[in-house]
Amino acid sequence: MLRNAWYVAAWADEIADGPIERQILGDSIVLWRKADGEPAAVSAFCSHRRLSLAKGRVAGDRIACGYHGLEFAADGACVNVPCQHGVPKGADIRGYPVAQRYGLVWIWMGDAALADPATIIAIAQWGSPDWGYNRGAALVYDCNYQLITDNLLDPSHVTWVHPTSFGGTAGEAVPMRIREAETGFTVSRWITDAPVSPFYRDLVPFTGNADRLQQYEVRYPALAVIKAVFVPAGQGGNDAQTDWGPDAFLMDSYNFITPETEGRSRYYWFQLRNVRPDDAALSEAMSAAVLAAFSEDLLVLNEVQRGMDTCPDATISIATDAGPLRFRHRLGQLIAAENRR
Amino acid sequence: MLRNAWYVAAWADEIADGPIERQILGDSIVLWRKADGEPAAVSAFCSHRRLSLAKGRVAGDRIACGYHGLEFAADGACVNVPCQHGVPKGADIRGYPVAQRYGLVWIWMGDAALADPATIIAIAQWGSPDWGYNRGAALVYDCNYQLITDNLLDPSHVTWVHPTSFGGTAGEAVPMRIREAETGFTVSRWITDAPVSPFYRDLVPFTGNADRLQQYEVRYPALAVIKAVFVPAGQGGNDAQTDWGPDAFLMDSYNFITPETEGRSRYYWFQLRNVRPDDAALSEAMSAAVLAAFSEDLLVLNEVQRGMDTCPDATISIATDAGPLRFRHRLGQLIAAENRR
Amino acid sequence: MLRNAWYVAAWADEIADGPIERQILGDSIVLWRKADGEPAAVSAFCSHRRLSLAKGRVAGDRIACGYHGLEFAADGACVNVPCQHGVPKGADIRGYPVAQRYGLVWIWMGDAALADPATIIAIAQWGSPDWGYNRGAALVYDCNYQLITDNLLDPSHVTWVHPTSFGGTAGEAVPMRIREAETGFTVSRWITDAPVSPFYRDLVPFTGNADRLQQYEVRYPALAVIKAVFVPAGQGGNDAQTDWGPDAFLMDSYNFITPETEGRSRYYWFQLRNVRPDDAALSEAMSAAVLAAFSEDLLVLNEVQRGMDTCPDATISIATDAGPLRFRHRLGQLIAAENRR
Repeated sequence: MLRNAWYVAAWADEIADGPIERQILGDSIVLWRKADGEPAAVSAFCSHRRLSLAKGRVAGDRIACGYHGLEFAADGACVNVPCQHGVPKGADIRGYPVAQRYGLVWIWMGDAALADPATIIAIAQWGSPDWGYNRGAALVYDCNYQLITDNLLDPSHVTWVHPTSFGGTAGEAVPMRIREAETGFTVSRWITDAPVSPFYRDLVPFTGNADRLQQYEVRYPALAVIKAVFVPAGQGGNDAQTDWGPDAFLMDSYNFITPETEGRSRYYWFQLRNVRPDDAALSEAMSAAVLAAFSEDLLVLNEVQRGMDTCPDATISIATDAGPLRFRHRLGQLIAAENRR
Repeated sequence: MLRNAWYVAAWADEIADGPIERQILGDSIVLWRKADGEPAAVSAFCSHRRLSLAKGRVAGDRIACGYHGLEFAADGACVNVPCQHGVPKGADIRGYPVAQRYGLVWIWMGDAALADPATIIAIAQWGSPDWGYNRGAALVYDCNYQLITDNLLDPSHVTWVHPTSFGGTAGEAVPMRIREAETGFTVSRWITDAPVSPFYRDLVPFTGNADRLQQYEVRYPALAVIKAVFVPAGQGGNDAQTDWGPDAFLMDSYNFITPETEGRSRYYWFQLRNVRPDDAALSEAMSAAVLAAFSEDLLVLNEVQRGMDTCPDATISIATDAGPLRFRHRLGQLIAAENRR
Repeated sequence: MLRNAWYVAAWADEIADGPIERQILGDSIVLWRKADGEPAAVSAFCSHRRLSLAKGRVAGDRIACGYHGLEFAADGACVNVPCQHGVPKGADIRGYPVAQRYGLVWIWMGDAALADPATIIAIAQWGSPDWGYNRGAALVYDCNYQLITDNLLDPSHVTWVHPTSFGGTAGEAVPMRIREAETGFTVSRWITDAPVSPFYRDLVPFTGNADRLQQYEVRYPALAVIKAVFVPAGQGGNDAQTDWGPDAFLMDSYNFITPETEGRSRYYWFQLRNVRPDDAALSEAMSAAVLAAFSEDLLVLNEVQRGMDTCPDATISIATDAGPLRFRHRLGQLIAAENRR
């Protein structure tokens, strides 16, 4: 797994009431909020008796162990051991760089010297009054994170996994275009002059058939930006266009997958839409609908992991695997390069 | 485990509403019903991404994967891959011969060329209006299947495991007779001039003491036919007799054990009786009573497996193990011969 | 684990209604009560088919297997096999010396020739009308027993783990005195002229500040006697004193830890107090309060075990570990000596 990367560690409000423990890339980590409101993260277990610091108490900027009161700063330094003078050698634990963005706490799992919060994904329309926000959730998948990125780079699954929501047979035969960038891969297609599929029908501000852009960008190691564009039939077809006119419906879906272990992943997401930005009922309904659809993915991917664990023989690849396979290949190179450092 | 044999895979009505997944002899298998009503079975996991085909949909005679729509015929051949031309090499999965008999779906786990449905057990009185049918159930035992066949070939356990149902101390001292056939072993005894035990009291059409035949035939690899005969005291004693006169009570119990893994087994059964064939309430009451008694076996055998797993030292054998030991020995030879092929 | 030692196997009343199975030092054991009321213990699994004898029946002094009726005496000898003459070689199982004391069944896990019930801990005031009895409970800890003895020899944890019950910040800075004996270690301290902590406030028969003795004696392998003494401020300070005058409040807590496996322990306890001996409501309230406080220890120690299992790297030691480390070192020598025998 790639360590020199920012991963989402928690929703910002998950650490409002006290420390929490999370497993990320196999590391057990405790997160808390310092006196100034900034998040902090250290390895989870006290250096003395291995009690999880999530069972301890926040004391100003520090976290204090709930067994003997040892105190740790946000960089992992042990700064106090009650009942004795001084701090023993070896008492420090690992600190992790963290940053808060977009209502989420981000954590850097690799070399702290390389951690630059400026490299966290930029979301230009965040906070804009013209865009509505659908708060997502965080689903725990019992599968490897690459099954999720595979799925995101393979929109053909929509027909089979989401027949009653995202799906629709209209575009089944339209091939996907794959583009590679330094940061990852994008697969996309325009389905032209087709009925609007059920999930989007009430959102699209025009009637009649639509040209629809499906665009799935997945960045290394496991972050996806999904763009949906619906314009009246005849107006679409150009991915690079940005000014779509007053009838366009745009929805950007931000998806952040954090590997907890090789076999378990936590999937955070939210969406921004260009219609009815202040319509709270709409936000709630869309969030619920997306959760329902993502739960369909979860059931399938958990089963895929079970199938692979039960039957580890070689599998075949089909045409729609082109994007996933290229993404996996390049990510594998990045991980290998990191391990050589 | 013996592979060239018919095992029960499911009750026929278990695949009425869609495909199901079962583990049999360690193989994961998906069963469904084809357009013509005949059952079909293939290895469970799609050759592409290992989603269980039980999560897919029946499409005519075929089963279609719920992830990308790959279609498989009943012989395991992959016959369609959506979104591309042709089927990749290696896409086929294993098909299993199946047949429906006696309300059950049977599966052949070995060499398909050797599968002959005519070798499924013959039950002459099946469908006869003179015999009543007690539909059984299917209990999942957390133990090796041979603990169940041991138990069936060792009627002495009845005294200890079923004291309030099948049991009764009358015959405790009567030794069992063991007979070997090519297909398996039969242990039996006549308990003469004894009170009728509680389970049978209301079924026997005469009063007073009975001669009772207990006969347990177990066939390789794990199929048992249990015959109970009650006749008025003085009329019994001859196993080979078939015409017992109007007072006889006969009950044949058919028991089919399917090893799911080395440590887990599924036990299917039903019974045929020669009294009150159309008495549905009686059928239901008998089925419930048998389920209760078999649940006593299940508790003991699951515990025996736990004891053996916890304490794997050598065990002793006692006199009543004669039948089970000979059956195990001969079955072991059959399995060894199969493995040499 | 030390085998030549008496461990608590059960509360005496736990075997009133039939045999029970317990795991002790990794051995599976069945306990029952003989016809004369004395307890008996043998290895759990029948030598024939490994059914736990806890699923069997008590027959006089013997226990009979619930599968085929084999009978075992309290020394483990197989004395009857139904349906045959004689008992096969190898049918005997292991018997364990047991004794009943203080409402508990004690078991000797080592060489039976060395078992002497006179070496079970002596409790002089047991049965005295001047002392009240708080019956404890038995908590199952998912941790190694030495984490519990560590905790008992480290009273500094009280401040952090039991802040609202046993705790109180008054004595935090008072160092513990450690004394070694042949049987184990004692850590103790006098906290002088301090308010009485919440747990004891209603029990102490004087007002105003107290001198308080905290004394934790832990004997090999895992038995603890905790003495609490509260006297009016100015009257304390001498551990050896036994006649404390009419205002003294004394409470002796007896704690018996039985390792079930390396990772699971059962903790039995009761208390004797020198106030209101016949006050049943007080006994019940004290028992409930102790259970609540011990449940705080359990949560912490189970988490410590989880932390150690998850993160097996070396840990640091701090000043308060002095007692636990010396106890572990000496117990390790005793176990090594036993293994050399």
